[in-house]
Amino acid sequence: MDNHFFIDEPNLHTLEYVELSGQEARHASKVLRKNVGDLLILVNGEGCKATAEIQSIQKNSLSLRIQSRELREQPEGKKVLGLGIIKVRDRFEFAIEKAVELGATTICLFESDHSERTRIKEDRLESIIQSAFKQSGRWWKPGLIIKNDLKSVLFEFADHEVLMAHEKKQVEPFTPSLKKEKLLLVGPEGGFSEKEVELIRQAGGELISLGANRLRTETAVIALLAQFLFD
Amino acid sequence: MDNHFFIDEPNLHTLEYVELSGQEARHASKVLRKNVGDLLILVNGEGCKATAEIQSIQKNSLSLRIQSRELREQPEGKKVLGLGIIKVRDRFEFAIEKAVELGATTICLFESDHSERTRIKEDRLESIIQSAFKQSGRWWKPGLIIKNDLKSVLFEFADHEVLMAHEKKQVEPFTPSLKKEKLLLVGPEGGFSEKEVELIRQAGGELISLGANRLRTETAVIALLAQFLFD
Repeated sequence: MDNHFFIDEPNLHTLEYVELSGQEARHASKVLRKNVGDLLILVNGEGCKATAEIQSIQKNSLSLRIQSRELREQPEGKKVLGLGIIKVRDRFEFAIEKAVELGATTICLFESDHSERTRIKEDRLESIIQSAFKQSGRWWKPGLIIKNDLKSVLFEFADHEVLMAHEKKQVEPFTPSLKKEKLLLVGPEGGFSEKEVELIRQAGGELISLGANRLRTETAVIALLAQFLFD
Repeated sequence: MDNHFFIDEPNLHTLEYVELSGQEARHASKVLRKNVGDLLILVNGEGCKATAEIQSIQKNSLSLRIQSRELREQPEGKKVLGLGIIKVRDRFEFAIEKAVELGATTICLFESDHSERTRIKEDRLESIIQSAFKQSGRWWKPGLIIKNDLKSVLFEFADHEVLMAHEKKQVEPFTPSLKKEKLLLVGPEGGFSEKEVELIRQAGGELISLGANRLRTETAVIALLAQFLFD
């Protein structure tokens, strides 16, 4: 998707002229050496992709004229990934990248009881999400939310079907309900605490198995989301 | 699985005394500072886990006496991952690590038509497999095979049900057969060539979709294997 550029412009579907600035503009002009007259695909992560012609190139921005656009409704289903924060950065970032590719509609990170203390670089995560979003060809970019604990996550997504991956659950396939809004929970390395499991039970959530093997956090994220490829 | 050590000893289930050598021995004595009298879990990747007591520690090896052992039959199903070689090393290695966690019984790498030329470091891949194997708690370590092209892969696993992940396939869930031997094919970045797709069709294989989004190779590997968590 070398030709796709992210633009933070909710009104992309109505505008005739737009400015592309920042890193995306520099990438287009400096790295890909796009020139006046070249066409770019702009995506705004809110259901609009536009083909736009470069009108002029400034130092840190491009002026573009929209030629055509295509719109796509937000998908009906909600797949919220609730992920306990893990410290190992490459695995954590990998999990987030993969969650975008596999169709998570919101990524909600939280301090799980077994999460090790670490500083979340929200800007960096946002840029990983943006890049995976462009790469995956999706129309709606997943949102990023950060919460202090599992309780706050459950409160935020109170109307969702709650499914928690848990390795102590008996190894057997599960049958999800037909509910379109799902909160899929994956713990940090070390898993969820007893208290967190109890919280899920009280909230009417379900513990589910992801097979007989012990999975790392990022693998559990992907395996869990991969159960809902067509929802 | 800090206490698990891999030992390349097919007769672990019959021996009373064994030597642990190389990196695993150094890890036990130097990094984890195990001493005479301490217990280790030895796994041989062929269905045997043994509890063994350290009798003596040499510079590069440990002498151990087996105290007890547990055996597990090889699982009936075969999940062979056939993976087109990709050049980006971290993504390639990640795919292999995850395939082990998710239960692939053999990992068969091959030069796909769109694979970029690169040198395969078999030793390094073997060590990734070993480490993921220990971490995942599996009993049988997946084998590693390298082939020159897709045709040779099909020949090697001629009696398997062939499922090829393909993004041009219509987006719809697929229903696998009940056949216990599966060859799951994932192409390199750039996907399979027309010729390769034709080869699969001729071999009676099936093209399957992994959903509407464009997936990177390593994501497709995990998403595909995650369809068979309980097989």
